[in-house]
Amino acid sequence: MKKESLTSKDEITPESIRPFRLVIFGASGDLTKRKLVPALFGLYHEGSLPEHFEIIGFARREKSDEQFREEMLEGINTFSRFKPVEEEEWSAFSKHISYHQGNFDEKDAYQSLATKLAKPIGDQEKSLNLFYLSTAPEFFVTCTRELSEVDCVGYGMDSRIVVEKPVGHDYDSAKELVNELQQCLDESSIYRIDHYLGKETVQNMLYFRFANSIFEPIWNSSMIDHIQITVAEEEGVGTRGGYYDGVGALRDMVQNHLMQLLTITAMEPPATLSSDSIRDEKVKVLRSIPTPETDYIVHNAIGAQYEGYRSEDRVDAKSTTETYVGLKLMIDNWRWAGVPFYLRTGKCMPVKASEIIVVFKRPPHALFHSVAGVNYLHRNRLHIRLQPDEGIHMAFAAKIPGKSAMDDVDMDFAYTSKFGSYSPEAYERLLNDFIIGDSTLFTRSDEVLEAWRITDAISTGLRRKNVELYRRGSWGPAACDQLLADAGNSWVKLLPRAKKC
Amino acid sequence: MKKESLTSKDEITPESIRPFRLVIFGASGDLTKRKLVPALFGLYHEGSLPEHFEIIGFARREKSDEQFREEMLEGINTFSRFKPVEEEEWSAFSKHISYHQGNFDEKDAYQSLATKLAKPIGDQEKSLNLFYLSTAPEFFVTCTRELSEVDCVGYGMDSRIVVEKPVGHDYDSAKELVNELQQCLDESSIYRIDHYLGKETVQNMLYFRFANSIFEPIWNSSMIDHIQITVAEEEGVGTRGGYYDGVGALRDMVQNHLMQLLTITAMEPPATLSSDSIRDEKVKVLRSIPTPETDYIVHNAIGAQYEGYRSEDRVDAKSTTETYVGLKLMIDNWRWAGVPFYLRTGKCMPVKASEIIVVFKRPPHALFHSVAGVNYLHRNRLHIRLQPDEGIHMAFAAKIPGKSAMDDVDMDFAYTSKFGSYSPEAYERLLNDFIIGDSTLFTRSDEVLEAWRITDAISTGLRRKNVELYRRGSWGPAACDQLLADAGNSWVKLLPRAKKC
Repeated sequence: MKKESLTSKDEITPESIRPFRLVIFGASGDLTKRKLVPALFGLYHEGSLPEHFEIIGFARREKSDEQFREEMLEGINTFSRFKPVEEEEWSAFSKHISYHQGNFDEKDAYQSLATKLAKPIGDQEKSLNLFYLSTAPEFFVTCTRELSEVDCVGYGMDSRIVVEKPVGHDYDSAKELVNELQQCLDESSIYRIDHYLGKETVQNMLYFRFANSIFEPIWNSSMIDHIQITVAEEEGVGTRGGYYDGVGALRDMVQNHLMQLLTITAMEPPATLSSDSIRDEKVKVLRSIPTPETDYIVHNAIGAQYEGYRSEDRVDAKSTTETYVGLKLMIDNWRWAGVPFYLRTGKCMPVKASEIIVVFKRPPHALFHSVAGVNYLHRNRLHIRLQPDEGIHMAFAAKIPGKSAMDDVDMDFAYTSKFGSYSPEAYERLLNDFIIGDSTLFTRSDEVLEAWRITDAISTGLRRKNVELYRRGSWGPAACDQLLADAGNSWVKLLPRAKKC
Repeated sequence: MKKESLTSKDEITPESIRPFRLVIFGASGDLTKRKLVPALFGLYHEGSLPEHFEIIGFARREKSDEQFREEMLEGINTFSRFKPVEEEEWSAFSKHISYHQGNFDEKDAYQSLATKLAKPIGDQEKSLNLFYLSTAPEFFVTCTRELSEVDCVGYGMDSRIVVEKPVGHDYDSAKELVNELQQCLDESSIYRIDHYLGKETVQNMLYFRFANSIFEPIWNSSMIDHIQITVAEEEGVGTRGGYYDGVGALRDMVQNHLMQLLTITAMEPPATLSSDSIRDEKVKVLRSIPTPETDYIVHNAIGAQYEGYRSEDRVDAKSTTETYVGLKLMIDNWRWAGVPFYLRTGKCMPVKASEIIVVFKRPPHALFHSVAGVNYLHRNRLHIRLQPDEGIHMAFAAKIPGKSAMDDVDMDFAYTSKFGSYSPEAYERLLNDFIIGDSTLFTRSDEVLEAWRITDAISTGLRRKNVELYRRGSWGPAACDQLLADAGNSWVKLLPRAKKC
């Protein structure tokens, strides 16, 4: 099953999935109610779950099964894409849900959990046991150790855990977390979630690049001038100030999301579609990025803070936390030598949008130079739009009818126009993969550590500079434009919102 | 001006165009009324003509200037894209129009014409003299000789002629025509018209291929599997039976239109944008096509006739004229070695459409084979649509949301959606080029002769076979599918008509 993860799922039928028990640690939290249980209900509704399964909420508060189910029903009826749930369906689904009260460091609670998990299920002696650690990071290790002590997880055992982000706050803490978890169970049983990888278009990037013959020959430093990756948020820090302040955009966004987008854009074709083949190639990209010198970062990275951030709820009035990062990275390998990767992410940007823009080199010969002015040579661009309006757009030069002049035009492909607006929830996809044991879309420990190696160096460099201020609703400080202008480039305007046909 | 023909036109202002006199031979014919004078009016209306010019209709019938003008007014009000003409504008434009009565072999008529043409015009001693031979082909030489005898055309003289198609009916007759015309005037003053070259998209092919950096690297035998060129007509022979019967699709369409599309698709980048640089490259493509052996054509070409053709008006009841041709040609050069070019054209096809389809090779490695079945590997396709709905479309593989499967999707660029529905008449563009002396879009004698060399060989091969029959509204006989099936290919479905947004 693992050998061809991206290919095998359509052959997996609900009947072929082993009966499982999924324990959610931190079941009273927002994520469980808003995302996890609605996603599980979605999978159930679509017939993707086996006949026998149990969802067990684990949390500190005293609560009956019935109370917990009522909370989950409310969550589904508010957040599920199949809301409202019909009474009959709920009655059938809710039978699979129960609650297990306990503190995360309370041995008895694990012992009694183990007893539940040891029971036969359906016609099976044992269930596949799955653990979702939706807890504060400091409990990742505690929970895993306790599970290990009661033999619910362990080397060679048929169990898996999901760890929510963040995986550490720097290289050393991440390394320690990796080590401690690996003392309890095998790396291949640890699923580190990154929500961006659930996005359809990110997965589509693999198809786009490697199922088509026309893109790979131009996907290199001979043809590509540079690449721009933007993950922009329109909102400010909102109610998340307590978590966000002191973490900042570099750790919150660059270390995981932007690095993931970078590796998927830059990776070599994998040997097979197995999750490890794909992640081998992703980690190779990160290994090809030398640890940036502090001096390099001072000149090639910008940290900035939106005006008014220090007045936000639960934010330090003297905070130097950056809410924006822009930087230039180089990948030192054969394919990408000399091709800058410009990354930027920020809060309070003009739009909410994620986009990868591949800017190709100018044509080698200026055949049409006098058409468009001596210094003008068109550069082709490929826009890969992740959100909103997922799609792919190619900008190229075409003749203006009736004139001997040219203009930039776009070839568009919008996912919704071809496939309708159906787009499975990222969590449905990720939970489904977790249940069937496909780790492709989860981050492997070596990936996490390589990303932290680079991120730590960026952090060190940024701390040598003052955090700049930028206006809310702007694209960040002027210095970030200068980053590209130094190489004669500029940030390409993101695609406009799709027009409805 | 000739050195950079595609680039210079925007710098040409009406003031910079020399005062000219344009004589249309065969001015009583349909073409003059439907196309030529409406196109000239279009140029006038848009301010593209100089202050001083004269349009002189030359034909046999007795007619006053006023009668001729009335006929032209009727033509403009029926066929011009700026109809109806306003009285004031017509009054100004019609002053430029006059009629000259004469037989094409009547020396006096040329003598009196020469007298008119020798008069000063505006502030110029002499006009630029332009001759449009819209006559039956047998008069091309007669008219040119007579014009030469009265010193209206000649080597080193400031005059040009346009010759309508057909240029001969085989290599020998074309060669004779070329020789006879070249006895009277320089090759560079002879403009052989091919209406397809006035089409915007054909010109855009030059921009598309050579103003973008991303297409040229994949435009060769390493990346391209084969190319399909279709020019389909929905109508039957209609009222043209008298001309068409005995000529057939090979001479009427393949020798000129399809060969032109082939050369523009396959040509190397020209050294400059001068008309001769471009035509040098086009003729090189034809020279790289070895004269097909009769035996090759028997196996790789199909001539067919639609059912009921023999009952059409003015068609021989035993006619073996083909109304459909399908064939495979190979170009023996570095770029195209081993890449079949499949050409087809026919009457009574399911749609009226012209399309060039570039079919790329499958990806070298079948990474996704188990997603789509072992034998499935997507082939990218580029559709260049000439009519209707001019545009460019790229077909590629994308992931189906929520599934680990892929599907063919399209990236589209429609000219109308970017530039509106403005599309200058082909004749406006061609007449404008003729007036300013840009011969890029006209066929040079060596091109014509090379195309006849190949066409004659195809004709010889086809005569060895019986003409097949095909149903009206079909895509021709089954044999034409077999032509591609032998290489594991098939005709790609043409693009559907564009949806209105």
